[in-house]
Amino acid sequence: MQRALSVTRAENFPDWYQAVVRDADMAETSPVRGCMIIKPWGYGVWELIQGELDRRIKATGHENCYFPLFVPLGFIAKEAEHAEGFAKEMAVVTHHRLKMIDGRLQPDPAAELEEPLIVRPTSETIIGDAFQRWIKSYRDLPVLINQWANVVRWEMRTRLFLRTAEFLWQEGHTAHADEADAMAETMRMLEVYRSFAEDVLALPVIAGEKPENERFAGADKTFSIEAMMQDGKALQAGTSHYLGTHFAEAQNIRYQTDKGDLAFAHTTSWGVSTRLIGGVIMTHGDDDGLRLPPAIAPRQVVIVPMLRDKPEDAEVLAYCDAVAAELLKQAAFGQPLRVLVDKKPIRSAEKRWDWVRRGAPVIIEIGPRDAAGGQVTYMRRDRLRDGDRVRSNGVPREQFVSGAGALLEEIQAALHEEARRRLHDNIRTDLTTFEQLADHFGAAAEEDAAGEAFRGWARVAWSRPTGAELEAVAERLKALKLTIRNAPLDQPRAEGACIFTGAPAVEYVLIARAY
Amino acid sequence: MQRALSVTRAENFPDWYQAVVRDADMAETSPVRGCMIIKPWGYGVWELIQGELDRRIKATGHENCYFPLFVPLGFIAKEAEHAEGFAKEMAVVTHHRLKMIDGRLQPDPAAELEEPLIVRPTSETIIGDAFQRWIKSYRDLPVLINQWANVVRWEMRTRLFLRTAEFLWQEGHTAHADEADAMAETMRMLEVYRSFAEDVLALPVIAGEKPENERFAGADKTFSIEAMMQDGKALQAGTSHYLGTHFAEAQNIRYQTDKGDLAFAHTTSWGVSTRLIGGVIMTHGDDDGLRLPPAIAPRQVVIVPMLRDKPEDAEVLAYCDAVAAELLKQAAFGQPLRVLVDKKPIRSAEKRWDWVRRGAPVIIEIGPRDAAGGQVTYMRRDRLRDGDRVRSNGVPREQFVSGAGALLEEIQAALHEEARRRLHDNIRTDLTTFEQLADHFGAAAEEDAAGEAFRGWARVAWSRPTGAELEAVAERLKALKLTIRNAPLDQPRAEGACIFTGAPAVEYVLIARAY
Repeated sequence: MQRALSVTRAENFPDWYQAVVRDADMAETSPVRGCMIIKPWGYGVWELIQGELDRRIKATGHENCYFPLFVPLGFIAKEAEHAEGFAKEMAVVTHHRLKMIDGRLQPDPAAELEEPLIVRPTSETIIGDAFQRWIKSYRDLPVLINQWANVVRWEMRTRLFLRTAEFLWQEGHTAHADEADAMAETMRMLEVYRSFAEDVLALPVIAGEKPENERFAGADKTFSIEAMMQDGKALQAGTSHYLGTHFAEAQNIRYQTDKGDLAFAHTTSWGVSTRLIGGVIMTHGDDDGLRLPPAIAPRQVVIVPMLRDKPEDAEVLAYCDAVAAELLKQAAFGQPLRVLVDKKPIRSAEKRWDWVRRGAPVIIEIGPRDAAGGQVTYMRRDRLRDGDRVRSNGVPREQFVSGAGALLEEIQAALHEEARRRLHDNIRTDLTTFEQLADHFGAAAEEDAAGEAFRGWARVAWSRPTGAELEAVAERLKALKLTIRNAPLDQPRAEGACIFTGAPAVEYVLIARAY
Repeated sequence: MQRALSVTRAENFPDWYQAVVRDADMAETSPVRGCMIIKPWGYGVWELIQGELDRRIKATGHENCYFPLFVPLGFIAKEAEHAEGFAKEMAVVTHHRLKMIDGRLQPDPAAELEEPLIVRPTSETIIGDAFQRWIKSYRDLPVLINQWANVVRWEMRTRLFLRTAEFLWQEGHTAHADEADAMAETMRMLEVYRSFAEDVLALPVIAGEKPENERFAGADKTFSIEAMMQDGKALQAGTSHYLGTHFAEAQNIRYQTDKGDLAFAHTTSWGVSTRLIGGVIMTHGDDDGLRLPPAIAPRQVVIVPMLRDKPEDAEVLAYCDAVAAELLKQAAFGQPLRVLVDKKPIRSAEKRWDWVRRGAPVIIEIGPRDAAGGQVTYMRRDRLRDGDRVRSNGVPREQFVSGAGALLEEIQAALHEEARRRLHDNIRTDLTTFEQLADHFGAAAEEDAAGEAFRGWARVAWSRPTGAELEAVAERLKALKLTIRNAPLDQPRAEGACIFTGAPAVEYVLIARAY
């Protein structure tokens, strides 16, 4: 069967992913190692993600700020003392001027900075420094702020959206009087991420706590939402950290309590990034390209006029514009529809497939017969095919227009349900020994040299080992290319023995290959 | 008379500006030299600027993208060959890892980049490189894109919002088939800026063309909008450049014409930045702090409950919430009102003055008598005082609520009109010799050692000298701390002789001290 992409998911999932990103016009690599160019269709998705998530972040009492791109090296050095296992791959600014020397433009040796500056990999330290100045008394707490920003982490192996040197994200940073208030904040924002992923991205996720060895450096507790990609791997889609008083102690963020003594603030941080877009692609894409959940589709309905360089073209175009004008008055998800009449001077068949690959939720093709008959012929991107054939539906114009909002909401629900089933049908809960776990994931490695066959996840009982014992568990898993994703918040009471230590189990954790 | 700031505009305008930025909680300096922290109230203003300007940029057919933060040094070197007078104060990234050496965290010598990366000062070259890949045929033109981003230019003397090493902006970049199309775009975006400044920021501006010596490096023509600050200086508030084929030639942006031959694209770029916020402050602020045009006020109406730790407090709070709920259903500028009931646990008199300094357009104080009498007592920030006395107006609640949208639009118009008068009343058009010009501006220097006395601008006839002759003019003006701002688009036919060269005048230009 002829598909709109040159490679299918089954043939080679990583290649398929690259093909979707490219053919859906989402992003491309740039001449700067590891940095991407986000193209209009991809950036349009990000703008919709930003808009809706920002609304939810503000609705929970946070305000946006903007902090400097650079962090003085001294701040990072101080953090390094307090946080072990802290990554050091960062972009370092050492000069502030270029100079032509011997006919070659180069950093001017006379303009070397006294203290190098780091391009922020995250902003805990620079924001913590402001907190230390802003917070004097318990009356100043909580401080609840967020910023939308670019950050840089020097990555050796990059993949568009999933892992790039520079990426876009939001980072929330808050300070509280005590642990209870900070923990409530940590869980509140985890829930904002969970419901946002489910409702807006149609991305089913499991929220839970990371094991000690997977915590953010300097965090007391790290929570994540994890999503299952179509190759069975997990993608960490958002994290929320309770930082205890570690950062407050390193940066002297203290306040006068209502009793008059000094106490360290308890801080949190939480973030999601352009990585979410990678998760959307790997969750909803098919062998014809991207399928965008309508809530984040820059154009939800695209109208392609079928023109033939004939006199009736004018009538067809007028009809398309009239349908578009009516659709713009309709709403889905509480907002006016986003509609485009694609008038580019290329063949209409080419346009159809461009929009299929880009994942526009509804594509309408209008020819002279539709215009004359008051009809609309449309395709649902989530149910594009009936066997080999492309499925198109002809309905009277009024019927289509009045039902367009509901149709988009139905597509959103259908994409969510499809992904929800995949997640819930593919978590093994019957593995009770490490050997069974190894067999399950190891068998995949034999079937497929790259170990890329679909195996889903496993939920296993464990005794929550720590320190060296946990490191040993992580090593055994690593040999199978596996990691512990999280201990789901929503889980039954643990029974039986830990599959790693044999000790009595205290909870269940999710095991998976991961991005 | 007691004022809400510690310094008045007349006493010391630069100190007054700093006091407003600080006391209005807009921004503060950071521990990173030249970089600012934009605080929630300041960032809220930027979000409103972004939202409305973005809408206008999209309405003119542009799409948003995102390009890398870094530019390879080689790109800058190539541009330097093509563009003279190109600034070299840039942040240079030379390493990609930190390492602990001799107990000190420092750039790892083993992780030096082969080619240094520059933190973008602007993105012409990195975007031009993408255009060169994207544009093949006349069918691909025009390409109309924009990005919202942070940029860095190493500045020695910085001032919050007006001149900082890092700032936030939007930069539009477009490519066209020919000069006519590119010039139409250049003028279209200049007009978008002009009308945005007037309508949304209440900032009267004069749009015109920059003289040759003030052009963007590499531009064929540079246009600007110029605003007059309350100290009489000019602030360049936005620029739009026609770049000819200079960047296309440097980066090989060529396309196949409809006749089949290859031609260079004509490009444009245009931008405004967080500097606009500095312009708003220096245009509308008064000796009590900031006065925000309602269209960009994060809170347009702030309600301060007058609480006394007495039983009737509950009734006052309930009344405040009820008034707020009704106001939220009202609209101004086509959008729902932005309303806050300030419940912070501090004295209500302190809150009143905090909001006066922050420039909330309408401040309501509600005490037990208002609640009992169904009244609202409010202050208009634009007409705060009647002599020494603060002017507050008591009106029935329904009357206030139903008129709130119109009141905010009236305040917007009043601020615009006040600034418009200042601009139009302070441009001297009667100076016909250089001596008169020098007298006018020089007298200020005598009166005031710092040369800071209000002198406004002058509009003078000139013969549009170029090259060395223009440089000589610039030098003579520089001795008076003056620059040529622009040649207004809207101007009468020039008469008489050039005040610099004595040759027949061809147009009028604006002369001013400037930020």
